[in-house]
Amino acid sequence: MISVVILGTGKVATHLFLALEPLKAVTVVQVYGRSVSALKAFESKVATTSAISQLLPADIYLLAVSDNAIADVSKNLSTLKGLVAHTSGSMPLETLETHRKGVFYPLQTFTKGKSVDFERIPICIEAETFEDKELLRQLGLAVSKQVYELDATKRAPLHLCAVLVNNFTNHLFQIADEICQVQNLPFELLLPLIGETIEKLQFLTPKEAQTGPAVRNDQQTMQRHVTQLTQPLHQAIYLLLSESIKQVHEKELQRIP
Amino acid sequence: MISVVILGTGKVATHLFLALEPLKAVTVVQVYGRSVSALKAFESKVATTSAISQLLPADIYLLAVSDNAIADVSKNLSTLKGLVAHTSGSMPLETLETHRKGVFYPLQTFTKGKSVDFERIPICIEAETFEDKELLRQLGLAVSKQVYELDATKRAPLHLCAVLVNNFTNHLFQIADEICQVQNLPFELLLPLIGETIEKLQFLTPKEAQTGPAVRNDQQTMQRHVTQLTQPLHQAIYLLLSESIKQVHEKELQRIP
Repeated sequence: MISVVILGTGKVATHLFLALEPLKAVTVVQVYGRSVSALKAFESKVATTSAISQLLPADIYLLAVSDNAIADVSKNLSTLKGLVAHTSGSMPLETLETHRKGVFYPLQTFTKGKSVDFERIPICIEAETFEDKELLRQLGLAVSKQVYELDATKRAPLHLCAVLVNNFTNHLFQIADEICQVQNLPFELLLPLIGETIEKLQFLTPKEAQTGPAVRNDQQTMQRHVTQLTQPLHQAIYLLLSESIKQVHEKELQRIP
Repeated sequence: MISVVILGTGKVATHLFLALEPLKAVTVVQVYGRSVSALKAFESKVATTSAISQLLPADIYLLAVSDNAIADVSKNLSTLKGLVAHTSGSMPLETLETHRKGVFYPLQTFTKGKSVDFERIPICIEAETFEDKELLRQLGLAVSKQVYELDATKRAPLHLCAVLVNNFTNHLFQIADEICQVQNLPFELLLPLIGETIEKLQFLTPKEAQTGPAVRNDQQTMQRHVTQLTQPLHQAIYLLLSESIKQVHEKELQRIP
């Protein structure tokens, strides 16, 4: 049985609590949060505190606070005997100023009010000692089928990739949604296409799956699209992404007789 | 029973043939292609020809050729009695120089060798007369559950949206795939995250679903990401998409106390 204290009351903390709390192999002994009102959501299910001095003993302290707060909060955890692991994709292990340091990074996007299937989430772990790595691996395997030991040199590019495939992709959806609203078209029309975009990845590399006017260097269609976009920033995004696609596929284009 | 001749042997033509050929309500009577070798793939299943003069009579001629070839090919179809419909998202109906003009645009990305479920593909139709619209609607409903009558003023922005959510999204996947290859990380690690990005759209608008450093205006993380990107074009894409996300969510950021 692994005992865990969760520090934080935001989206990552909440999703971790919901995933860990039902597990037989894990006991969430306490949730810590600065804000008494944010702790209210946890009070009926677990002990809570807003005082660092009242943290209970635990094997692992999961520090699910914002990246910029990790160093500051961890300064106050330097006397803890347990392993302190932050949950950030982009911060190095050394950000922690604790006795025992770890990283427990679930590679996923968490939204308030929407549950996720933790079993399928890759958990990226890092620690300084063999024992601490094993402890984090045990916790990871209790909640997910995929646990990877990755140090910061691998975790940082992975986090960058996560921004590309999730945050930026979602922003393109948002621009499309705006266009649909202006044109009074239902955004749902695009869902089968979006679904197929993802499904292709099971069979093809993204490079193989690329289609559209930019890959054919179809200047007329691209020009028509740019003039349809009303915001200069969206026009710039269109031109830049098209140029990038064109450059990747230029060699293939030259091979077409 | 609707009789159909397919003109073209590329990806769209092939997928249309595969979708229409098994239907009871439709007979594909012929496939036309300029290239005799490309027609070989169809020969065992349907009559083929590479001579416009030998086109068989049919209710509908589906013109699945590249956008830039539509006008030219259609010039040679001006004596046909049947309805000629192109399959392009971005070309107006008037591109056709035929007696009866139509559009039959399946909103999907087609890849050689990967089958798609046509039932879920929105089919966008347009024609000049009520009778021709009904004919295209019948053909659409024979193959798909979703048929929409959209003229060029709606179809053009929809096609632009398709480029945003499919072509550009796929290119972001490709940049991530490149990073993974350089870092010796499996791209598959990102698939659950990509899956969740799409799943969120069932519950939230893309604007509501937005997460990441740009929406928080987390300059430190964004700066770290940009320095990790080795290609100037990728850096520019990162900065531009982040700026665009920031601008959309700036008002929300200001509301956070």
